[in-house]
Amino acid sequence: MCRYVSYLGPPLVLSHLVYEPANSLIHQAAEAMESRTRINADGFGIGWYNDEVHPEPAVFKDVSPAWNNANLRSLADKVASSCILAHVRAARRYDPVSRANCHPFQHERLLWMHNGDIPGRGRLHRRVCERIPDELAARITGSTDSELAFMLFLSLLEPPLARHVETAELTAAFGATLEQLEAWWRADGSGEPIVLNFCVSNGRSIVASRFALEEQEVPTLHYCAGSEFSCAGGACRMHGGTDPAGSVIVSSEVLSEDPQWASVDNRSLLVVAEDLTVSVDPLG
Amino acid sequence: MCRYVSYLGPPLVLSHLVYEPANSLIHQAAEAMESRTRINADGFGIGWYNDEVHPEPAVFKDVSPAWNNANLRSLADKVASSCILAHVRAARRYDPVSRANCHPFQHERLLWMHNGDIPGRGRLHRRVCERIPDELAARITGSTDSELAFMLFLSLLEPPLARHVETAELTAAFGATLEQLEAWWRADGSGEPIVLNFCVSNGRSIVASRFALEEQEVPTLHYCAGSEFSCAGGACRMHGGTDPAGSVIVSSEVLSEDPQWASVDNRSLLVVAEDLTVSVDPLG
Amino acid sequence: MCRYVSYLGPPLVLSHLVYEPANSLIHQAAEAMESRTRINADGFGIGWYNDEVHPEPAVFKDVSPAWNNANLRSLADKVASSCILAHVRAARRYDPVSRANCHPFQHERLLWMHNGDIPGRGRLHRRVCERIPDELAARITGSTDSELAFMLFLSLLEPPLARHVETAELTAAFGATLEQLEAWWRADGSGEPIVLNFCVSNGRSIVASRFALEEQEVPTLHYCAGSEFSCAGGACRMHGGTDPAGSVIVSSEVLSEDPQWASVDNRSLLVVAEDLTVSVDPLG
Amino acid sequence: MCRYVSYLGPPLVLSHLVYEPANSLIHQAAEAMESRTRINADGFGIGWYNDEVHPEPAVFKDVSPAWNNANLRSLADKVASSCILAHVRAARRYDPVSRANCHPFQHERLLWMHNGDIPGRGRLHRRVCERIPDELAARITGSTDSELAFMLFLSLLEPPLARHVETAELTAAFGATLEQLEAWWRADGSGEPIVLNFCVSNGRSIVASRFALEEQEVPTLHYCAGSEFSCAGGACRMHGGTDPAGSVIVSSEVLSEDPQWASVDNRSLLVVAEDLTVSVDPLG
Repeated sequence: MCRYVSYLGPPLVLSHLVYEPANSLIHQAAEAMESRTRINADGFGIGWYNDEVHPEPAVFKDVSPAWNNANLRSLADKVASSCILAHVRAARRYDPVSRANCHPFQHERLLWMHNGDIPGRGRLHRRVCERIPDELAARITGSTDSELAFMLFLSLLEPPLARHVETAELTAAFGATLEQLEAWWRADGSGEPIVLNFCVSNGRSIVASRFALEEQEVPTLHYCAGSEFSCAGGACRMHGGTDPAGSVIVSSEVLSEDPQWASVDNRSLLVVAEDLTVSVDPLG
Repeated sequence: MCRYVSYLGPPLVLSHLVYEPANSLIHQAAEAMESRTRINADGFGIGWYNDEVHPEPAVFKDVSPAWNNANLRSLADKVASSCILAHVRAARRYDPVSRANCHPFQHERLLWMHNGDIPGRGRLHRRVCERIPDELAARITGSTDSELAFMLFLSLLEPPLARHVETAELTAAFGATLEQLEAWWRADGSGEPIVLNFCVSNGRSIVASRFALEEQEVPTLHYCAGSEFSCAGGACRMHGGTDPAGSVIVSSEVLSEDPQWASVDNRSLLVVAEDLTVSVDPLG
Repeated sequence: MCRYVSYLGPPLVLSHLVYEPANSLIHQAAEAMESRTRINADGFGIGWYNDEVHPEPAVFKDVSPAWNNANLRSLADKVASSCILAHVRAARRYDPVSRANCHPFQHERLLWMHNGDIPGRGRLHRRVCERIPDELAARITGSTDSELAFMLFLSLLEPPLARHVETAELTAAFGATLEQLEAWWRADGSGEPIVLNFCVSNGRSIVASRFALEEQEVPTLHYCAGSEFSCAGGACRMHGGTDPAGSVIVSSEVLSEDPQWASVDNRSLLVVAEDLTVSVDPLG
Repeated sequence: MCRYVSYLGPPLVLSHLVYEPANSLIHQAAEAMESRTRINADGFGIGWYNDEVHPEPAVFKDVSPAWNNANLRSLADKVASSCILAHVRAARRYDPVSRANCHPFQHERLLWMHNGDIPGRGRLHRRVCERIPDELAARITGSTDSELAFMLFLSLLEPPLARHVETAELTAAFGATLEQLEAWWRADGSGEPIVLNFCVSNGRSIVASRFALEEQEVPTLHYCAGSEFSCAGGACRMHGGTDPAGSVIVSSEVLSEDPQWASVDNRSLLVVAEDLTVSVDPLG
């Protein structure tokens, strides 16, 4: 089912998000606390933005469990960024484990992650191929429902995509993607669980959903806003107030003991705007 | 552009096909003699049949150069088979290197390899998705034109596919696949080189093509028939006569100094029947 | 701490040992039942003998969790062997995960596995290097205590090693290895736990130890003897009697519900002779 | 035999060193121009310093050919550093290809690379283990002569090593390492070629050797000093004068057409001081 974390705020050393919190993403790779899949070790990925060098994010993804990856261990202490997205994957049984199937998925300046499941991958593949232009079809490199959903999302943005996509445009395409996937699911009438917890970023804002259409299984989603997130002496804390927020974490699981953590309701859209204002709105 | 080798005959130790010949597949990974891409080191794969244990072939594929893979080195000396297909890949620049993109591709009892290039992968992806049923669309795991061509081929066989597919049926679907790909290419009118050197096996026969529509670049294809292929003292030889043949090798490159090696003309279809009779016929 | 399984008997399809039992090795990779380390996903390995092709075993090892390795999944159904050793690894925190650190370790016709821990790896490394000849020092390829113990063991056999090493000779060197490691541990006086559950095979017999010097943590070891082990309809059974045995499994964990499973006491040496007679004797 | 490049100067985007020059390190992975091993594709590594975040360098190493690594491709455009070391490896036949065997090797704040070969690895392993303390023996993770030489070098520095090691101290230990290796080689009297082109950095200075004791095979070493190295429109140039230098590249091969490239003589020690002064002195 996967787990993810994303961050906006002052430059943060990657390890403060993925290694150091008590329930860090690395911890969730082996021992997720709020997930049906306790082990999320079928690959991982981390993307981060460094506008001073390049408008596109760096993406480091690999097929090993996150906990034993020596490159991640080395990079995480030496890289800081003001926008970070990271993900640990639990593949369905015998789904290929490849870099191409690891999240976040990148296209131009955008990063996309998914925590969930879309039933009927063959049909989804064919439907998405019908909708998207050749240029995007040529960019499908893996075999996940998550990447197909990203392609559908990208096809709903105004080309060209090699530009800064404003938060409002992201949000509109994000909502349209959810609507389309829900419509297909209703048309199929299979009743199989569909879980669409997506997260997208342009490097300055984050849009995320908690969206499951069967109540029995709704993967968790939380956020935490404050002035600054930092780790010292083995403890990580979100400091200060939220008016306005200086730092926001959006995460499948609560990372730290801070009281600011809030759970997002099912069928909700969370937007962290460029000014770090957080809004959570119900989805139709 | 890739290189490949396939074998039918008495059980042969894998290393006699992939390591020991002077121009072995391992050699071709680093120093292909007859290819535009001298280095074919973006992954490799080997499939072999062992009917006594399972009707489907074993497939071992990995992303490393074939020459430095310690697992291949160990397996190759200890496994023997009467039907072997092996491949070394040269990816196009920045194409993903993943197990899912390595050849041979397997579906039920069939193995498929490709040495070539189909222009316009995005369009091909969309066209193939339109043609194939959901079950096959769900089985696309990588991002190669080669796998898409295999899916098209599979869709032209009579389901169910979990059975022995006779050589005649293989040959018919193989020909129809080439025709469809050529028709699409002509419809596009891009004039970009299209190279369709495919190879398929059901474990008892082999069907292969040499088929390029632009004469300037026609990857090589050869075969060698005799009574037995064996290696000793660093030299590999195809022994005996061909009436009838006891062993047949179909290969992108000539492996050994045997006089039985014959080159296949462009626009030809080569069939090694279950009785090891070899026929080469012109393609329309 | 790792988990392992080994088998002697009539040719058995690998998957019957590693995938199909209710508590298979694959299951133990994610959910070990009798281990302090529940997850054993820092690489895996499987070695098997096929005397008809080569006197040395094939060894397939990789760094991924065993549960998501597509090559293992394909090979396991299509390979059968009368002597199989397989292992899933739990590395100590930030120990390198590499093929060179996966078990079983192979030298000529021997395979070696370890489930345990030897404290003071730097000192062990230096001590073993002092003891072994240059030829063996050149064969150290990883960074595990397990491989160093194997090198020590190999240095206690009579060279040359490219031959069949009889069970009695294996047993003697095995005992001497345990004695040396215990002596060094006592000399250090650190009192840190030392766990020496080793397993070695020459392809026809198995020698294994359960040997921990601190009672608080003694990894489990079991064996199961009968006429034949087989799986059908999702259930695996050891059939028939043990007089004489036709099949023996030696395993860190009980794989099936068969009543023949017996636990080996701490400080014991288990020997499965070439005639499949099982003996368990206390270690000094 | 391997190839490497190192850089000191104003922050440089990694790709300007490893991808963009006409004879970039990526090019050398497939087509080294000045090396006996044309293909250097048995793994690669890159280390870079970012003092603002951490005094130790980040190290990203992987086993694939450098040319097809998607993570390297992504990172290289988005990371800039004022001290970079990168390496592509050509392993000896069937030497393990693992991250642990990729260069640069890191210990605390130091990075070490090697282009060469030390004969008699087993003996070297034993000799180095005799010389170094347990703490360093515990840090041997791979099976290369290069890492053993690094361990010997580290043992010749004053502990503790978790500090900035001054250039003079680096240079002294570097010279002592060469002397010891040469003495051992002379004692053995094998006459086998020994090639000790090492490169070490503390993040602010570089010490490198060109040092082969058999004249028939002396791997190349070059450097290039100027005011600034930059790439634009597909061409990379070292700009400006060298008095004083603002940028220095030390590289196995000439990367660009700049006239400032100078070849280092055999048996020479090259030092790039913290003020970027370059000195080249004969070795005893």
